[in-house]
Amino acid sequence: MVADLPHPLNPLTPKEISRTAHHVRAAFPDQEAYFRVITLLEPPKAEMVQFLDVESSNGILESRPARVALVQVFLGPRDSEHFFQLDVDVVSGKVIKREQLSGCHPHVDANDMQKIEQACLNDPDVRSAIEEMQLPEGAVIKIEPWTYATDGTNDMSQKITMCYFYMQLSPHPDANHYAYPLDLCVEMSGDARVLKIYYLPHGTSNDISNSARVYDRRNLHGSSTEYHPDLVPEHRSTTKPYHVVQPEGPSFTTEENLIRWEKWTLRVGFNYREGLTLHDVRYDGRSVFYRLSLSEMFVPYGDPRMPYVRKAAFDLGNDGAGINANNLQLGCDCLGQIKYFDGWHTTSSGEPLQIPNAVCCHEIDDGILWKHTNFRTGNAVVTRSRVLVLQTIITVSNYEYIFAFYFGQDASLQYEVRATGIVSTVPISIGDKVPFGTVVAPGVLAPYHQHLFSLRIDPAVAGYKNSLVIEESHPMPIKDPKVHNPFGVGYTTESQFVEEESGHDLDHMVNRVFKIVNENVISPVTGGPVGYKLSPFYSQLLLAHPSSYHARRSEFAAHAVWVTRYHDDELFAAGRHTMQSLGGQGIASWIKKRQEDKEASSVRDQDIVIWHTFGSTHNPRVEDWPVMPCEKMQVGLKPVNFFTANPATDVVVSTQARNQSVLVNEVQTG
Amino acid sequence: MVADLPHPLNPLTPKEISRTAHHVRAAFPDQEAYFRVITLLEPPKAEMVQFLDVESSNGILESRPARVALVQVFLGPRDSEHFFQLDVDVVSGKVIKREQLSGCHPHVDANDMQKIEQACLNDPDVRSAIEEMQLPEGAVIKIEPWTYATDGTNDMSQKITMCYFYMQLSPHPDANHYAYPLDLCVEMSGDARVLKIYYLPHGTSNDISNSARVYDRRNLHGSSTEYHPDLVPEHRSTTKPYHVVQPEGPSFTTEENLIRWEKWTLRVGFNYREGLTLHDVRYDGRSVFYRLSLSEMFVPYGDPRMPYVRKAAFDLGNDGAGINANNLQLGCDCLGQIKYFDGWHTTSSGEPLQIPNAVCCHEIDDGILWKHTNFRTGNAVVTRSRVLVLQTIITVSNYEYIFAFYFGQDASLQYEVRATGIVSTVPISIGDKVPFGTVVAPGVLAPYHQHLFSLRIDPAVAGYKNSLVIEESHPMPIKDPKVHNPFGVGYTTESQFVEEESGHDLDHMVNRVFKIVNENVISPVTGGPVGYKLSPFYSQLLLAHPSSYHARRSEFAAHAVWVTRYHDDELFAAGRHTMQSLGGQGIASWIKKRQEDKEASSVRDQDIVIWHTFGSTHNPRVEDWPVMPCEKMQVGLKPVNFFTANPATDVVVSTQARNQSVLVNEVQTG
Repeated sequence: MVADLPHPLNPLTPKEISRTAHHVRAAFPDQEAYFRVITLLEPPKAEMVQFLDVESSNGILESRPARVALVQVFLGPRDSEHFFQLDVDVVSGKVIKREQLSGCHPHVDANDMQKIEQACLNDPDVRSAIEEMQLPEGAVIKIEPWTYATDGTNDMSQKITMCYFYMQLSPHPDANHYAYPLDLCVEMSGDARVLKIYYLPHGTSNDISNSARVYDRRNLHGSSTEYHPDLVPEHRSTTKPYHVVQPEGPSFTTEENLIRWEKWTLRVGFNYREGLTLHDVRYDGRSVFYRLSLSEMFVPYGDPRMPYVRKAAFDLGNDGAGINANNLQLGCDCLGQIKYFDGWHTTSSGEPLQIPNAVCCHEIDDGILWKHTNFRTGNAVVTRSRVLVLQTIITVSNYEYIFAFYFGQDASLQYEVRATGIVSTVPISIGDKVPFGTVVAPGVLAPYHQHLFSLRIDPAVAGYKNSLVIEESHPMPIKDPKVHNPFGVGYTTESQFVEEESGHDLDHMVNRVFKIVNENVISPVTGGPVGYKLSPFYSQLLLAHPSSYHARRSEFAAHAVWVTRYHDDELFAAGRHTMQSLGGQGIASWIKKRQEDKEASSVRDQDIVIWHTFGSTHNPRVEDWPVMPCEKMQVGLKPVNFFTANPATDVVVSTQARNQSVLVNEVQTG
Repeated sequence: MVADLPHPLNPLTPKEISRTAHHVRAAFPDQEAYFRVITLLEPPKAEMVQFLDVESSNGILESRPARVALVQVFLGPRDSEHFFQLDVDVVSGKVIKREQLSGCHPHVDANDMQKIEQACLNDPDVRSAIEEMQLPEGAVIKIEPWTYATDGTNDMSQKITMCYFYMQLSPHPDANHYAYPLDLCVEMSGDARVLKIYYLPHGTSNDISNSARVYDRRNLHGSSTEYHPDLVPEHRSTTKPYHVVQPEGPSFTTEENLIRWEKWTLRVGFNYREGLTLHDVRYDGRSVFYRLSLSEMFVPYGDPRMPYVRKAAFDLGNDGAGINANNLQLGCDCLGQIKYFDGWHTTSSGEPLQIPNAVCCHEIDDGILWKHTNFRTGNAVVTRSRVLVLQTIITVSNYEYIFAFYFGQDASLQYEVRATGIVSTVPISIGDKVPFGTVVAPGVLAPYHQHLFSLRIDPAVAGYKNSLVIEESHPMPIKDPKVHNPFGVGYTTESQFVEEESGHDLDHMVNRVFKIVNENVISPVTGGPVGYKLSPFYSQLLLAHPSSYHARRSEFAAHAVWVTRYHDDELFAAGRHTMQSLGGQGIASWIKKRQEDKEASSVRDQDIVIWHTFGSTHNPRVEDWPVMPCEKMQVGLKPVNFFTANPATDVVVSTQARNQSVLVNEVQTG
């Protein structure tokens, strides 16, 4: 019986989704259920740890955590007052917990958005505003609906969508409408009524017209704004094919969601919100991480003008990295031998909805792993670095994000974000400049903005009780009689344990290093605790003023590294409900509340979570237009005195017999 | 006649090296010539720019810069008084310039080092010190000679070598002797005399014995300290083969030292000191860089005790990245279709000495270059990123460095350093700890140290007159009536031209960006100057005290970004002669001297050079032992408003037909 259930960390199966929907309808027979979320409620960690301890020691599993679904559903009318979160036992159907989410709005509903777009386009006032602009013949209006980022001026109980206007000139369906931003923005209610028409500002202040500007024909800039291959006039023919061939297949094996690769084992999770998650990550049987995930991201725009102050997207909390995961294509998104994992979501009626090929798993060659040449014998020993990639790509309107975990043979791990896609654009008059954006084409302004990510690291470094150490490198004093440093060249490291929940910043000038250590497991080599260290991505934190709604809603963006005590319900750095949130529900608030309530807040030798805020201040270049070459951001996690030596000395040495490369002689053009 | 000569930027050919040696012997018939360097003296930039302007416009070359060799040679006795630098016209044989290099020492001479090692081993006092240690039977002494890093206590006119002692226990010639550091260090003179025997310190001060310590048998730790495959007990069998197949060959073409690849053209240079250099780098015919090179690197150790204060290596100036370049092997150091470039050096008698396969040129797939999915149509357009790699690897005793330039299809460029090899070790008593090193095995201390690199960027961004702009992102003020920022979310960039030669530091908290711009070439899109920006590698600067010899000798290590006016003779950030240098000959000194002499020091719209200092504070992990997994450091250079759009929109879209990947179904272990 126990063995029939999926692994407790596996996402809900399609059958479990259907069954859960059935349970909910049965429990609330009098209300129409409009489902927004049916996803696995991961088991409480306390239960899960017991399970994993038995599982990892190949013990006999006498019981296992229940399969529980987290459901978000409208019961009755689709307004905030009828929005509920239910915890439902998937097997028994019991509603374990029922929470009314008054004042909260669920993540974006694509069907709703389409209705709002249509209603907006059909509105007579909007139509006459469009007519005023005297658009070129053949122009087709495209609306980009943006979720409303709280600015404090609106009634928060109402769901609001800001509709920005663009035109598509070419009849090609994939012509780039972002090249033609129009002087119009319409505020729409959740029930698809026009609330307000905005004409967009000129210059650096909120100067606006009382009517839409006539479209400036000098802004018709042709094919240089296109990215689709049908519309790009000429392609380079110089790039020759490049194949990755793995004659004996990949080096990984999979068993449902469990991946085994080069001493690593890990479980792939997936949910509508975070998309790809990783669980129970071990190297050589030793536990390293309980859970790794992108917890949230925030993209606030730096344009101070109304209505642009409302452009600030929580792409996970508002849109969902899982829901928006691309259907990855063999040979396109991934090269070599590829294993795909599907995701499952729910339709509004509770049918399982497949998100095909949401995660790809494959290997890459990453150059050299280690090398040494003995200069006495001339003998070189070199190993190549094979890396396991778990990748997911999301599209959030104009932008794309590529999220990838890279596992190394040396027990190191990288998390990479690549930002690509199309920058968001707004109109600007020819000849104008503003100090908060880049003109990328005539009439087209790409406003400055930030991408701020929160990587959630739930460590299990040699066990579940860990501590955070901040280590810095400092020169030894000179002329101090107690210190032997006669030539002024000495330096030492200074380490400090973090005692309380808190946020910290980076400082490369003192080589500040964040180490997650286990004080109960001492390295037999160094005599100190075993650990993993964070190699952060150095980036600017939030630029918006601390008093702004942007800052209040994205508390995680105030510091680069946070440490909190583990709580089952603290998965999302900006809080559970980010849509039109008012602030006060993120990391800083959790910490503050526990301090005020005199709850336990020590993070020394506790079950802790580390949150790393990183990202980019993206002041667009012209080269980011019309489609942006990937901007890479990388975070590293590396063992530090966790093993008793380099765990990759046993990687097979590289040889030509094995790797079969080809010598190129001089190749002349022609 | 003119066309018969090699391209002015090509390294000297073997024939030119022989001819130059012949010229030198003819010019100084009465002195025995002991050659240390015969390399190309690159033409004066003023001449070279004229040449390149004609060449790049396919004009008729009526004259070309002369081929001149830079020669470093002992004429007569091999002491500092007889050490000369000569500029020799390769064709006519004329000695254009002759400079006596009194007080300077040439780079390391491997033959000399071997003599010193032998003399050291044969010395009766050294032999009795070795005997005192009562080494295990079969132990073979291995000496690691270190160039002496100036500490102010020695007569500088004399060349000094510090010989550190290790033992090899296994009869295997590649057994890792760094695992067995011994309690002995011998200071040797340039003429191979023992100057002093040091017993090595215990504890954190300079406490030493009067005699060598008896070797502690508890330190015989066996195979866990070996990296050579013959000595590693078991290799993992899980890594399956991985081939890169390019059925139509590589996408690059070469013509002698000229490489053409994906709109890029560049010339590969090579010399004994910097190793790989790049010249006349253009994209789509537009000039971007005149010259790119690693200018210097400095590896100071943080152990304050004598004699370790003398461990601080200039691996370029003292040892030479060219001379120590590995012979790269097909399928081992590089995968796919590989073109190799040889380097040429000279023997002491003036014969050309081949440095085979010193540079490899090949392509890699780097994941996704750009992607966008139109959510309205569901159509995804994705291109993969092909990258051209130019790689060279050097071995400097225990350490390896992998240096690589990565060229992107989007006109971006990365410079990467990977540090690998074996950490330098010294003895430590069992149970002891010091705050300036990590115990990596019983009796083996890996002292803290820094790797500080200076990347020299000689820009030619749309021409040879460039400026450096420092841009920062700052919040707009709130509550300032002159500024429209009612919601506190606005931010802008502030740019400052650097006017004078100077050093600058990084600050990620204000998103400080360094842009190399051409004020004479205005982007038709933005109305501002075209440019390239530096994506620096954030790292700690030199930890040694400013008054120390370490700091005085490595002036470049005091700031992260320097800008100087171009001078033909300023190629090396720590000065021309680093061996036992006394300081006062690096970047800071050049700047200071010009300011004192009231020489031109403006860097606004001038021929300028940018120097980026980066590296790592390497406090070893146990995982860096016995061979270190690569530690990566990456610096980026990206166009910023240099083009009128993303120059890679014309890259062919990825398809399975072209890329031929393989779908993996569930693969179970077994």
